Amino acid sequence: MIEDYLGEIFASEVHYADLQESMKYSLLAGGKRIRPILTLETCRLCGGDPEAALPFACAVEMVHTYSLIHDDLPAMDDDNLRRGRPTNHIVYGESTAILAGDALLTAAFGQLAQAKLPAGQIVEAVKCLSRAAGSAGMVGGQALDMAGEGRALNIEELELLQSLKTGALISAAAVLGCIAAGGTVRQRELVSVYAQALGRAFQVRDDMLDITSSPEELGKPVGSDRTNEKSTFAAALGLDGCAALVEELTRQAVETIEHFAEPEFHIWLARSLAARRN
Amino acid sequence: MIEDYLGEIFASEVHYADLQESMKYSLLAGGKRIRPILTLETCRLCGGDPEAALPFACAVEMVHTYSLIHDDLPAMDDDNLRRGRPTNHIVYGESTAILAGDALLTAAFGQLAQAKLPAGQIVEAVKCLSRAAGSAGMVGGQALDMAGEGRALNIEELELLQSLKTGALISAAAVLGCIAAGGTVRQRELVSVYAQALGRAFQVRDDMLDITSSPEELGKPVGSDRTNEKSTFAAALGLDGCAALVEELTRQAVETIEHFAEPEFHIWLARSLAARRN
Repeated sequence: MIEDYLGEIFASEVHYADLQESMKYSLLAGGKRIRPILTLETCRLCGGDPEAALPFACAVEMVHTYSLIHDDLPAMDDDNLRRGRPTNHIVYGESTAILAGDALLTAAFGQLAQAKLPAGQIVEAVKCLSRAAGSAGMVGGQALDMAGEGRALNIEELELLQSLKTGALISAAAVLGCIAAGGTVRQRELVSVYAQALGRAFQVRDDMLDITSSPEELGKPVGSDRTNEKSTFAAALGLDGCAALVEELTRQAVETIEHFAEPEFHIWLARSLAARRN
Repeated sequence: MIEDYLGEIFASEVHYADLQESMKYSLLAGGKRIRPILTLETCRLCGGDPEAALPFACAVEMVHTYSLIHDDLPAMDDDNLRRGRPTNHIVYGESTAILAGDALLTAAFGQLAQAKLPAGQIVEAVKCLSRAAGSAGMVGGQALDMAGEGRALNIEELELLQSLKTGALISAAAVLGCIAAGGTVRQRELVSVYAQALGRAFQVRDDMLDITSSPEELGKPVGSDRTNEKSTFAAALGLDGCAALVEELTRQAVETIEHFAEPEFHIWLARSLAARRN
């Protein structure tokens, strides 16, 4: 459902084919789609029709994709490989990659507005996504990340950085599902707590895989954190400390989501992310 | 009103001061504020309260500001001077400049959602701004601009490029004012036609000033179009041809806006932009 929707959002009105191709190249690169799936399933969890949440789900994935394109730029992390393929600016050049990111971010908000939902819920969704993706959320986290390169962050700094850079958007993905379902404030709080624990566990696991995985399995170079002098949970806590933290966070996520009547998918998601190998 | 509002939108929650300063540096650099003024005055023109349109007005200015930051980047136009000051990436570095642009674009949509207006009008505004600023609008125009560097565009290509790169957002600024006023479809069409003529005249005048003005008057280097091998209306039509076109477009704008009861401000704006020296 997500792949079909993402494939169809590209306008027939094309003024410059390279820009559109560059957007498609990254958006349709077959990521894990964790965020949009979380939106759809959280909509269902809160009693809504997942299909109604599809524009919200795909908006989150577009924001995620734009952030990867910009993070990979030479002025940022300067990465050449992503999901087993050359990064966007390697294929399309730096200026097109910057613009493709800008266009995806812009289109994401347009997608929210296209949802067949009451206008009040759409306005809530715009507020939620803007907050999570902006300077007090994802972009703020990336700025902290760039500023922290080359010096060792302590665990509190690292937690803040990652809660902004990764956690905010994962949390928004879940909350957007709840908004689409017309969920209660209490439901929103619960899915947000669940998703934040999930996001933290995801990131800690990411740092572990950067050390223990292979490039073939990961689809990108391993050891890049060390190369880029990034502070990581693995460096701060060791691999055993990371494994224990992932377990604890997964337990918290599961415990929180069990307040809902049908939490099976969310429990499975938390457990499978904790055990993932790429 | 616009300056006060823009100065107050910066969150108290600051995780990384440089990012916020970088956003402020460009947003509060004292531009002409043509777009937000156009939003407020068009709201008034269509019978609304301009103050209610203030979040829409400032959202447009934030999108305009982000586009300038990204356009000035080394990978794009590589400009060092803007509004008489060093460009954002010269002061804050390239990665912070990219992120400041991203954060301003993200916050712009958040601003739309903050407006104290019926949710249905806000959703219309999100659609309008997303369309105007994205790949079928401003970003698409910038992509065409980058792709066209170094070869001579014909007048049709140049018109398309500029209608996307500059015209779309100026038109959106006016239409957002009409949306804030709860204006009719007919009113929206009229203000859009007016603003498109205004935007075209603005750009043709810009190309003229790049040749005839001085760096002191313009606040940026003159002759940069030639240096960057940009196609311009001045090159395509000559200075006399440009002057005639500006006059014709201004006449069209004035004629269109005279359908409203109190078009004085909009007439004055069209005439003063046509005669501007910076």
